[in-house]
Amino acid sequence: MSLHPFDSALQLTPDFGVQADQFLGRSSPAWWNMVGPFGGVSAAVVLNAVLSHPARLGDPAALTVNFASPLAQGDFKVVATPVRTNRSTQHWLLALRQTDAQGAETVVLTGTAITAVRRDTWSANDMPMPEVAPPDAVARLKARDETVAWLARYDMRPVTGPLPSRWDGSASSADPQLASLTQLWIRDDPARPLDFASLTAMADVFFPRIWLRRSVLVPVGTVSLTVYFHAGADQLAASGTDYLLGQARGQAFCNGFFDQAGLLWNSAGTLLATTHQLVYYKE
Amino acid sequence: MSLHPFDSALQLTPDFGVQADQFLGRSSPAWWNMVGPFGGVSAAVVLNAVLSHPARLGDPAALTVNFASPLAQGDFKVVATPVRTNRSTQHWLLALRQTDAQGAETVVLTGTAITAVRRDTWSANDMPMPEVAPPDAVARLKARDETVAWLARYDMRPVTGPLPSRWDGSASSADPQLASLTQLWIRDDPARPLDFASLTAMADVFFPRIWLRRSVLVPVGTVSLTVYFHAGADQLAASGTDYLLGQARGQAFCNGFFDQAGLLWNSAGTLLATTHQLVYYKE
Repeated sequence: MSLHPFDSALQLTPDFGVQADQFLGRSSPAWWNMVGPFGGVSAAVVLNAVLSHPARLGDPAALTVNFASPLAQGDFKVVATPVRTNRSTQHWLLALRQTDAQGAETVVLTGTAITAVRRDTWSANDMPMPEVAPPDAVARLKARDETVAWLARYDMRPVTGPLPSRWDGSASSADPQLASLTQLWIRDDPARPLDFASLTAMADVFFPRIWLRRSVLVPVGTVSLTVYFHAGADQLAASGTDYLLGQARGQAFCNGFFDQAGLLWNSAGTLLATTHQLVYYKE
Repeated sequence: MSLHPFDSALQLTPDFGVQADQFLGRSSPAWWNMVGPFGGVSAAVVLNAVLSHPARLGDPAALTVNFASPLAQGDFKVVATPVRTNRSTQHWLLALRQTDAQGAETVVLTGTAITAVRRDTWSANDMPMPEVAPPDAVARLKARDETVAWLARYDMRPVTGPLPSRWDGSASSADPQLASLTQLWIRDDPARPLDFASLTAMADVFFPRIWLRRSVLVPVGTVSLTVYFHAGADQLAASGTDYLLGQARGQAFCNGFFDQAGLLWNSAGTLLATTHQLVYYKE
């Protein structure tokens, strides 16, 4: 039986004999985006190094990854170092590097993570899942560009704020606070039980907010992505292979950078993650 | 003339001869919180290392700091390393360390930053400043606990969602989406012209959302803070010493951690920064 394409992309081999906390991996053509793999899968790969590390304490609570340069096809190294372990929390430094044709090391990604032992406490979700049409009542997004392989790795069903059908510069909404809002159902294709790594990747699936906000296809690239994990491993497992509802919108677009605020619920309405990113744009 | 207390806390001495990218600093009693200085000032200190670094390219675009252990009174080291410099963006690794009484190095804080050369582009603020009463129509928060020194460093005027006056477990609002909402006017006291460092500190001034949400004074501690900077140095300078309006609210409270989403505008309504944090809570 062949590996699921997501598990294939996540594969890491410990290389601790050569360098402490180092894993070896290889980029995955099945996840290719414009100039490198889909950023969500790179974020999932470095989180997977944390999850695979023998010294890990607890489950992911926070992850920040910064995209420093495109990941090229081929081998890469991931270093995930636990720099501080407290009673119930652990702090990690993350890096993904590649050796270029000239033998020079390139920093592809930097980051930090916090893992934590979660406890039963008073809890509340103050961002209830919006009431939207169920997945089977919403058409699946069809990838129009076959060169962008990663889009076929997801079953995405936009409820609100789909990719513009015309790049004519028309505003998508009269209300600025809704003009960059997307809500979509999403799951892996083929189906795969949800876990921390796949949730991380799904936090990055929203197409650039500025494309929706302006109906103009400007060049973009995420520079920093943060995910806060609000659910434990049990709640993720309980989400199974069902759709998640994702929501994203931009808050500020200014001088070449915009931010995106996002939320991810499972179909039962549990808020699994909140996420933010800062995205470079040209023009 | 003595230094402003904020500039005094920011003071760093380059120590590059001993270790590349290293600065020496000293914790500031004027900013003391419960078990260490106010976290916002520690975040500002590590950002100040980036701002002071001779190799810096551009202005701050994104900052993430993770609070690994309390900062003790006394000397500390900040290391700010530019690990990747592109044409218009630069990626930084950040650390703050202290040597304990036994001579062991303690990781107090880890982090990353991105600086960038901003350009004139299409821009839009999709989060307009809420219409609230002006600062002179709102009473200033009085610090009730003289042992928490940092509160006196700010003139804070809560418009919505003040610190509960009774810790009786009563909910503060019938609407969960507003139950942890605070809006407040804020400026340094004494007044000090706004810059990237002071904006960073102000992103962390909101008292813990769970206190407001529950009217219960549970133990808390920020574990990770991210700030996205949407304004350039000119816009910050134009904000002068006037009040900013800050807004914060919690989205998810689950198993010992809650998140906070925040926004900071200057009095002219320019959205200067968006910010997020993940906070540990007990019970």
